[in-house]
Amino acid sequence: MFDNVNKTDIKELGEFGLIKHLTQAVELSQESTKKGIGDDAAVLDFSGKRTLISTDLLLENIHFDLRYTPLKHLGYKAVQVNLSDIYAMNGIASQITFSIGLSSKFPLEAVEELYAGALIACKKYGVDLVGGDTSASVQGLIISVTSIGYADEDKIVYRSGAQKGDLLCVSGDLGGAYVGLQLLEREKRIFLENPNIQPDLEGKDYIVERQLKPEARKDIVELLRELDVKPTSMIDVSDGLASEILHICEASNVGCKLYEEKIPIDPMTYDTAREFGLDPTVCALSGGEDYELLFTVPQSDYDKIKGHPDITVIGYITEPSEGKDMISKSGKVHQLKAQGWNAFIQNK
Amino acid sequence: MFDNVNKTDIKELGEFGLIKHLTQAVELSQESTKKGIGDDAAVLDFSGKRTLISTDLLLENIHFDLRYTPLKHLGYKAVQVNLSDIYAMNGIASQITFSIGLSSKFPLEAVEELYAGALIACKKYGVDLVGGDTSASVQGLIISVTSIGYADEDKIVYRSGAQKGDLLCVSGDLGGAYVGLQLLEREKRIFLENPNIQPDLEGKDYIVERQLKPEARKDIVELLRELDVKPTSMIDVSDGLASEILHICEASNVGCKLYEEKIPIDPMTYDTAREFGLDPTVCALSGGEDYELLFTVPQSDYDKIKGHPDITVIGYITEPSEGKDMISKSGKVHQLKAQGWNAFIQNK
Repeated sequence: MFDNVNKTDIKELGEFGLIKHLTQAVELSQESTKKGIGDDAAVLDFSGKRTLISTDLLLENIHFDLRYTPLKHLGYKAVQVNLSDIYAMNGIASQITFSIGLSSKFPLEAVEELYAGALIACKKYGVDLVGGDTSASVQGLIISVTSIGYADEDKIVYRSGAQKGDLLCVSGDLGGAYVGLQLLEREKRIFLENPNIQPDLEGKDYIVERQLKPEARKDIVELLRELDVKPTSMIDVSDGLASEILHICEASNVGCKLYEEKIPIDPMTYDTAREFGLDPTVCALSGGEDYELLFTVPQSDYDKIKGHPDITVIGYITEPSEGKDMISKSGKVHQLKAQGWNAFIQNK
Repeated sequence: MFDNVNKTDIKELGEFGLIKHLTQAVELSQESTKKGIGDDAAVLDFSGKRTLISTDLLLENIHFDLRYTPLKHLGYKAVQVNLSDIYAMNGIASQITFSIGLSSKFPLEAVEELYAGALIACKKYGVDLVGGDTSASVQGLIISVTSIGYADEDKIVYRSGAQKGDLLCVSGDLGGAYVGLQLLEREKRIFLENPNIQPDLEGKDYIVERQLKPEARKDIVELLRELDVKPTSMIDVSDGLASEILHICEASNVGCKLYEEKIPIDPMTYDTAREFGLDPTVCALSGGEDYELLFTVPQSDYDKIKGHPDITVIGYITEPSEGKDMISKSGKVHQLKAQGWNAFIQNK
């Protein structure tokens, strides 16, 4: 994604120089940020609110492949992935820390791109970057993001509140990030076999963006607030719909019925999955990385959410003894299984 | 440090299984921890207090060498290094997130050791482990710790408050961690040349512990509170005394006079540095990793701190125009330079 001709070696700057250089573009906007970068710790003020904390580690060749991931997108995605966890608590993200480990193959310009992407995400989502760590690494790029948010105590939504009879809902559409990944992987293989062939991603922007530049659903948290709907449980779809539903069922001690025909899948996701000989439903169930919100609401809230283009009712919550099942389009009952996106299996 | 005979492959557990396994020993003790591990984010309550956030990334063969670092010590140290930043704000650390990236060379038992060390540190310092991320890595061990703490607004101490005439103070003694590292590096070289020779660290426990198992100075924060002393500025000594003094001087826009003869150096540090042909003062100035607290207090507080065995006055703050100098034992004036511990240079 970058060449090292006419690039600046980070060693020329040193660690303190690099931090100073990268952080000069950092602007603070959150009322709760009392002190950002520049001391031993950031200082935040959440008086009267609960503080939310979530953290993710993203590792080169495990979570991303720099052969098709532009660094600016990667910085953006690293932030989104993390903010998504705060929204999944029905909270508002307000700060992040952004740490990077870099091998010597990365010139300053590469790190600038990465950082620029992170800052674009911060700006767009109204989040302050308040700290981080910058280090050399022996091999590869390492990104660690911690996000901090807040919520009134009575607004926080856990995974554990789903009740029998609740409607199971999901935002946006699913499977696109996974199918986008298949497309990028195919083009990478073609490119490696014949570097003269340019990648053919024409007309596939939507699913490629779903993979490379996901958007955390802050808008859904705001929408639910406007609609005066407080979900009984919520989680973000990072590992795949099946895995997330099972997390909610386990934490809430309930069962569920999921209807295959209700799972929202974009036509481009559907058609491209078919091109690859993949079942679009499996892509939605086990693909992951969609960063949509999966949540449950009481049936009494149905009128508030029905017909909203960004929310789909995909099933309902049952007694735990009724199992955790998907009813297929043909009417067959399948037990839901957590395939998840398993980094340990990927790394075999 | 470990062999893989009769060890459990992490793949057998999978990511969720590993998290469940490791986190079953996690106990929560902080009043402010409303929800720890097990949801999208941890939920904390700091009503009426400022929240402090700090984060560190520790990478194998950059920040630690597993050939002489027991994993339990490493887990312990990773937490201490991070808590130290909260204490350096005159705050109380209350929670951490602990993330690890693991290559396939690490069996479950190795990760258990690492995690056990982290939990011992948490327990000893009264800190709750409330989150983290666990991932495979292509190469080496990656540890990312974020610590969260709190303080009353008027108790927080920044780097920027040092005033002309203030006394420059440091806790404990300096240089030991660096000299301990030299000792471990020497024994490693000897071992690599002849694996039959056992490491000879006898009688060197103190400096080896300073390197492998540092203690963040929570006790100093508590002591200062008991003595009714609020430092005007404070920082922890992670990169070396010179670098930290310069950080305070820069942030506070002041100069300083540091007296070489006042720098507290343990006799074992001193003698071992000499054995290696190193200047003990340089070890204190540029060695780093001591995790002591460097702080400034008004002269009027001198009576409160004088004679305390854990606090040494090593100089005083001046006008910025007077420079940032060390007066050597022979009376010569040297300009302080930030050698620091530069991960980018180490990685050459």
